[in-house]
Amino acid sequence: MQMVDLINKKKYNQKLTAEEISFIVNGFTKGQIPDYQMSAFLMAVYFNDMDIEESTALALAMRDSGEVLDLTDIKGTKVDKHSTGGVGDKVSIVLAPLVAHLGAKLAKMSGRGLGHTGGTIDKLESIPGFKVVLPLDQFKNQVKEIGCAIVGQSGDIAPADKVMYALRDVTATVDSMPLIASSIMSKKLASGADAIVLDVKVGSGAFMKTLEDGEALSRIMVDIGKKAGKKVTAILTGMEEPLGHKIGNALEIYESVETLEGHGPEDLTQVVAVISGHLLKHAGVVKDYESGYKLSYDTLRNGGALETFYTFVKAQGGDVNFLKNKDQILTKTKTYEVKANVAGFLEKVDALNFGIAAMKLGAGRATKDDVINLFVGIDLHKKIGDEVKVGDTICTIYHEEKGLKEAVEIVNNSYVVGPHKIKLDLIKETIL
Amino acid sequence: MQMVDLINKKKYNQKLTAEEISFIVNGFTKGQIPDYQMSAFLMAVYFNDMDIEESTALALAMRDSGEVLDLTDIKGTKVDKHSTGGVGDKVSIVLAPLVAHLGAKLAKMSGRGLGHTGGTIDKLESIPGFKVVLPLDQFKNQVKEIGCAIVGQSGDIAPADKVMYALRDVTATVDSMPLIASSIMSKKLASGADAIVLDVKVGSGAFMKTLEDGEALSRIMVDIGKKAGKKVTAILTGMEEPLGHKIGNALEIYESVETLEGHGPEDLTQVVAVISGHLLKHAGVVKDYESGYKLSYDTLRNGGALETFYTFVKAQGGDVNFLKNKDQILTKTKTYEVKANVAGFLEKVDALNFGIAAMKLGAGRATKDDVINLFVGIDLHKKIGDEVKVGDTICTIYHEEKGLKEAVEIVNNSYVVGPHKIKLDLIKETIL
Repeated sequence: MQMVDLINKKKYNQKLTAEEISFIVNGFTKGQIPDYQMSAFLMAVYFNDMDIEESTALALAMRDSGEVLDLTDIKGTKVDKHSTGGVGDKVSIVLAPLVAHLGAKLAKMSGRGLGHTGGTIDKLESIPGFKVVLPLDQFKNQVKEIGCAIVGQSGDIAPADKVMYALRDVTATVDSMPLIASSIMSKKLASGADAIVLDVKVGSGAFMKTLEDGEALSRIMVDIGKKAGKKVTAILTGMEEPLGHKIGNALEIYESVETLEGHGPEDLTQVVAVISGHLLKHAGVVKDYESGYKLSYDTLRNGGALETFYTFVKAQGGDVNFLKNKDQILTKTKTYEVKANVAGFLEKVDALNFGIAAMKLGAGRATKDDVINLFVGIDLHKKIGDEVKVGDTICTIYHEEKGLKEAVEIVNNSYVVGPHKIKLDLIKETIL
Repeated sequence: MQMVDLINKKKYNQKLTAEEISFIVNGFTKGQIPDYQMSAFLMAVYFNDMDIEESTALALAMRDSGEVLDLTDIKGTKVDKHSTGGVGDKVSIVLAPLVAHLGAKLAKMSGRGLGHTGGTIDKLESIPGFKVVLPLDQFKNQVKEIGCAIVGQSGDIAPADKVMYALRDVTATVDSMPLIASSIMSKKLASGADAIVLDVKVGSGAFMKTLEDGEALSRIMVDIGKKAGKKVTAILTGMEEPLGHKIGNALEIYESVETLEGHGPEDLTQVVAVISGHLLKHAGVVKDYESGYKLSYDTLRNGGALETFYTFVKAQGGDVNFLKNKDQILTKTKTYEVKANVAGFLEKVDALNFGIAAMKLGAGRATKDDVINLFVGIDLHKKIGDEVKVGDTICTIYHEEKGLKEAVEIVNNSYVVGPHKIKLDLIKETIL
């Protein structure tokens, strides 16, 4: 088999076999296929796409390039969740103790933030003492005992994805549906869960800007997961505005605790409950999604999962007192208030730009090696549809001077107050 | 300017500026743009094409990557010719002394053979003593004095083309019209001629298999040449069967001498006269193409340019006695005759396969580093449309055992004798 022939095959829009795709992925990961052939191939995939068999073969070959976690000694259905990345997305932190409390087993590997999106691992690290690296045995034991664990993604998981993504990033081949879908699914399939809920964010602050793109990506990912023998559901949720109010690592921990205490933002509470509802159904904890959703929502609203959150944080070495005295988080930095100078309703909040503003403050990384500040960020006091009076605070910026001027300028240009009271669809679609 | 942005631009089918194309070509040639970005870009060009402005900018940037010959101290219009490569194509060898004899100045750089196509430089080297490398001064003086010179392409001509072609070859990005056209034209434009005739071969033995492809390529090349200020004509000529009878280096010198003596094959004589006709018109030697064609054809048929050929060969150090005693060429190797076992008319001769058969015998190179045998090859006794009787010799194979079995098998499967007397169009089109 010659790589140049396989590039030609994709270029001429002929279907590749699983064996051919495996040859490409293995050859590239082992350094036998050079970068310049792989990038030509990836560009041909961008133009001629891959069908579901090809996409599945790609995801499986990438999965098999590294370690595949064996969670079979944890009893019952192991569940996992993935978000395509948004702004203010602290869903996993609330979800993990919730589903654990309700009887499911969530063994999750998460990533760090890059660009305008934060990462669950960074957020958890703002809890003093919290360990994001655990030996595999300890990770599995924790899931067995308390029902959940969240660790950083191991370097041995889908190494093919790592090298392919690095190449795609510099060759303008990121925005290809089968490449995005197989990248995500290769890691999820390697993580050992039996059931997966995919939270596909759609809107200005998400990678998928339109509902159509979100649907297409969801369809491919769900189909790949099913072909690989998993129970998979995708939900398309809105990312027109940030999720909840708070953006920034410790600030999002604050809001996660608030939500687990029972008085979190309605949008965040709903998204967590929807994902939890599907996971509980897949895990056999409830008989249908509707009862799973209701159970999850009610549990959040009455603070039922808060103790499990403390147990989970403690198990990973985190300081629970930090959570119990969460108001101190708001006093760690200087603050700056952005005030409204017109009255009306909040019509638009550009989630992408708010994410970028938080990054400028130091909450996120422009490049992988940037050091982040765990306490800076933005607290958005208003949500789309809220009434705004002149002089109302639109948001509080938590800062250490760095990037403040830029962030204020971005924020001021990234919201619109006008005469229309807009209502957004939060849960846009469910793909089974 | 960032290469990844330019890849994206071409990927999204936006037009690149001349400045951007120059940035890409220079950056790649200097090693500042890595292979993997260039190959992704080339694949995007394959899919989204380039318009004539982009193609011209590409050809000019490639031309300017190296030396551009200055032939201005040779008086009058300097002419050049390029063939896209066929089987049995010895046109340049006959053409050079013909146009020189008739008063034009031809300063030509030629290539070596690769794959199923031979190279003019290899063919000339089968004349003992013939030097294909001349100092620039000597090259120009020879053109001034006797009207023609043919040398190997200097390494300093369009180095960008060299590195880009090597990358295209291994990344399945060879068959893109703007890339083919700009590759050819970059070298022609660097060679310093004022007028160029492009012989675009069409048919089974050519890179362009269909008339449509040949027309498209011709149109782009002619337009690039005109935009660069040259007089350019393209002719589309048939390569359904080999040109003339003989394939192989010294065998083609034999046939070139025969043609210059006045009794060459009709197809070869015609193609040379057509190209010569256009060149003489561009050079102002004749007032129109028709009189140029007639003058060229008649001169060939009455052996008028033979002495100029001897002078040209002698000037480059070649042994003229080798040419005067050309029958010895036919005695240098063993021979094997392929006989017809059915009667009828020769309906089909697969030029590509005859080229491959000659390569297997050692007349051509499978890879750049192969050593060739100058005397092996194939003499095709019949042309398409000729009557064939049982026992007639279809072709004589000149061989040294190596590759004979394979060549005989290929040849036997590559011609068809049947009931139809077919007449081919030799000169299919002229693009001005």
